[in-house]
Amino acid sequence: MKWEQRKDLLGLKDLSREEIELVLDTAVPMKDILKRDIKKVPTLRGKAMVTVFYENSTRTRTSFELAGKYLSADTVNLGVSTSSVQKGESLKDTIRTLEMMGFDLMVIRHSMSGTPHYVARNTKMRVINAGDGVNEHPTQALLDMYTIREKKKTLEGLKVAIVGDILHSRVARSNIYGLTKFGCEVRVVGPSTLIPPEVEKLGVKSYYSLEEALKGVDVINVLRIQRERQQKGLFPSLDEYASLYMLQPEHLKLAREDVLVLHPGPMNRGIEISSAIADGNHAVIEEQVTNGVAVRMAILYLMMGGAKDEIAG
Amino acid sequence: MKWEQRKDLLGLKDLSREEIELVLDTAVPMKDILKRDIKKVPTLRGKAMVTVFYENSTRTRTSFELAGKYLSADTVNLGVSTSSVQKGESLKDTIRTLEMMGFDLMVIRHSMSGTPHYVARNTKMRVINAGDGVNEHPTQALLDMYTIREKKKTLEGLKVAIVGDILHSRVARSNIYGLTKFGCEVRVVGPSTLIPPEVEKLGVKSYYSLEEALKGVDVINVLRIQRERQQKGLFPSLDEYASLYMLQPEHLKLAREDVLVLHPGPMNRGIEISSAIADGNHAVIEEQVTNGVAVRMAILYLMMGGAKDEIAG
Amino acid sequence: MKWEQRKDLLGLKDLSREEIELVLDTAVPMKDILKRDIKKVPTLRGKAMVTVFYENSTRTRTSFELAGKYLSADTVNLGVSTSSVQKGESLKDTIRTLEMMGFDLMVIRHSMSGTPHYVARNTKMRVINAGDGVNEHPTQALLDMYTIREKKKTLEGLKVAIVGDILHSRVARSNIYGLTKFGCEVRVVGPSTLIPPEVEKLGVKSYYSLEEALKGVDVINVLRIQRERQQKGLFPSLDEYASLYMLQPEHLKLAREDVLVLHPGPMNRGIEISSAIADGNHAVIEEQVTNGVAVRMAILYLMMGGAKDEIAG
Repeated sequence: MKWEQRKDLLGLKDLSREEIELVLDTAVPMKDILKRDIKKVPTLRGKAMVTVFYENSTRTRTSFELAGKYLSADTVNLGVSTSSVQKGESLKDTIRTLEMMGFDLMVIRHSMSGTPHYVARNTKMRVINAGDGVNEHPTQALLDMYTIREKKKTLEGLKVAIVGDILHSRVARSNIYGLTKFGCEVRVVGPSTLIPPEVEKLGVKSYYSLEEALKGVDVINVLRIQRERQQKGLFPSLDEYASLYMLQPEHLKLAREDVLVLHPGPMNRGIEISSAIADGNHAVIEEQVTNGVAVRMAILYLMMGGAKDEIAG
Repeated sequence: MKWEQRKDLLGLKDLSREEIELVLDTAVPMKDILKRDIKKVPTLRGKAMVTVFYENSTRTRTSFELAGKYLSADTVNLGVSTSSVQKGESLKDTIRTLEMMGFDLMVIRHSMSGTPHYVARNTKMRVINAGDGVNEHPTQALLDMYTIREKKKTLEGLKVAIVGDILHSRVARSNIYGLTKFGCEVRVVGPSTLIPPEVEKLGVKSYYSLEEALKGVDVINVLRIQRERQQKGLFPSLDEYASLYMLQPEHLKLAREDVLVLHPGPMNRGIEISSAIADGNHAVIEEQVTNGVAVRMAILYLMMGGAKDEIAG
Repeated sequence: MKWEQRKDLLGLKDLSREEIELVLDTAVPMKDILKRDIKKVPTLRGKAMVTVFYENSTRTRTSFELAGKYLSADTVNLGVSTSSVQKGESLKDTIRTLEMMGFDLMVIRHSMSGTPHYVARNTKMRVINAGDGVNEHPTQALLDMYTIREKKKTLEGLKVAIVGDILHSRVARSNIYGLTKFGCEVRVVGPSTLIPPEVEKLGVKSYYSLEEALKGVDVINVLRIQRERQQKGLFPSLDEYASLYMLQPEHLKLAREDVLVLHPGPMNRGIEISSAIADGNHAVIEEQVTNGVAVRMAILYLMMGGAKDEIAG
């Protein structure tokens, strides 16, 4: 499919390699806008977008909001606690209401997998999945891929290890879908309780030993561990997890010399990642944040359709 | 009174037929703006409005916020939970503070009837009542009237049934005030516990039988039933209410063939309205939402006074 | 130091008299913008600011947000309850994330003294302290000084009494730092439990009698008393405080005939200030609010650096 024919961005599973490349290519001039003294172009003036987050997220919501503002779109945040959902309105009616108000695009995060897909089928608004349950988080994977491509010049044939709670990670899933389309060798590593057996069907290899998984890799993508695990008495506990899987400086010796370390944030320092790594010179974690805004600008632009020449604006 | 002389919009009770007509007429070109590819005119650039909602409402607050943004006004939402009211500040001092910050207009919703009137008397800001207790919700009634007029070409002489909890409904009250000014025959229908005896003094007729009330009507406006009733053990319960007053397809046969069904939203499907009706071709519920933005744009325009020629912008 | 060399506004302690004067002088044309029919200049178009309030405040947050909007900056509010801090992210990582998203300036309020200083050292964003614990609240003091200077034509040599809970007041502290730089005689007055002994080291004189402190003063700045005191069983209780220190009309006879009464708001009428005073003709409390927006516009302008000729815009 081509971007002009596409209504929604629901996941990387159903995005073609060409579509992904167009996002990454479009994000390049967008990143240049962010470096300007006046970070504002009129590209999406008169377009309106709404962010609807049923799960909290400073990072992703603000990134989308800023991306919209930099492109001059009108942005509205729908606080979940104040939403009509609490008054017993159906999700479909909420969505229809937003469409009828004139919003062109909706960014939605929801704890239940598949919610953005249901929403997309029931509205003419364009829909971006900002994370749905354990399914996908496509814009996170796209910004990860942008970051890798920018540093490594290509994605082709890279070895990428994704470390952590693979079972519950929509970031892992979207990265797997995206990276394998570029011929990457993707490895997932973590405790056996957190690696679903069926993950290998996605074309990745599972590891339980961090040391083994990191041998010769170009990229390490460290996932966030949910702190709530500890309270729930799950195995492994945070302490157990940290002792086995926290990324530390000695691990990097196993990887390629120019290995990149990514993390989607927010980080639990001392649990899944040591501060020496987070603040070290292999980490590109801060650049991921900037690239996240640029990639989301690119997506908003491709989806709300400003004219090409306006970008230069 | 004329709009040029009017400071506030507090209710339809004290609005003349001519003033109402000017709002509806002004909303027509506003709705055209909403259909454009670039939904933005500079009419209210440099004007600032604040929404202060002491009761939650996604729908109404977002509708006002968008109406402001489409007209290029600066909009600020005052979260109630973060407001100084919690610090023991008097309402009057809060209002005076907002005025002194330079806001031109305030949109207020409050659970106590008469609050916007008190506010209006104590500030030079223009004040719009977005719902006060069981008193009025003028912009809802204006968008209802706009929707009816658009479909029926006139309001004159129409038969309108308002169904539900008349006692607690500011929507009902504002509709009654507005519609009777245009010579409509307004009927209210619901359980006897929810129809105040004094309502007939407003020039409407009370019914307890849904079937009787709907005979020959042009418009049915279905009110939302508060779900909290069930917990409080009130009569009728939601189940009882639904069995007696939920609008269903067979009811429409009693009305005129081209009857319109309105609902202010958010809907409780299966309680006050069946899905067959809500999604049927007599319903204009979704169009009400769009019209709500257009009507609010018209009101903001009339109250904050852009120049006439700028609308065309 | 000069404003061009200054990255952050953390307190008046380390601001020179010249820098303070430049803020006050710049606020004069800003206040003129607020009086215009179209309150909007393009000065800070393409600049982005974020407000991060770890303590609630309608007044200060909205004042900054409006100041930004009037200057055409993009403004984003970070709700604290939705922030990553709750997910265990370090403050430093949160701040770095905001910087990497492209924000130029951050306005922060925090219950712990020194937080903005820590933040400022860890980011290239410009940082404005909007209140940190019991330390400083520089923009409040600057707007107080603007208000006094506007009315009295000069700050030089004025006698200023600050009344209330000096111990816990960042407003008091910032006022003391600022006013003493202009040769004011600053007196602090309140119950002995609320006046720290070391306050005299800042060049002020302590009083326990309101009557004595007010003799011959040009300005009375009445601080807000925290209502929570009552619940905690502290001395003095609100009743005790009011009987001894509530500013009432008879007190003004002790001061100069043209004495000004300031209050940072929100006011507890009947506790630290009587309504007769708050609404009387010596009070400049409402003007402080307007001046607050003007002073914050001046600060945003000086810190995010629009070109001088654009102000006239």
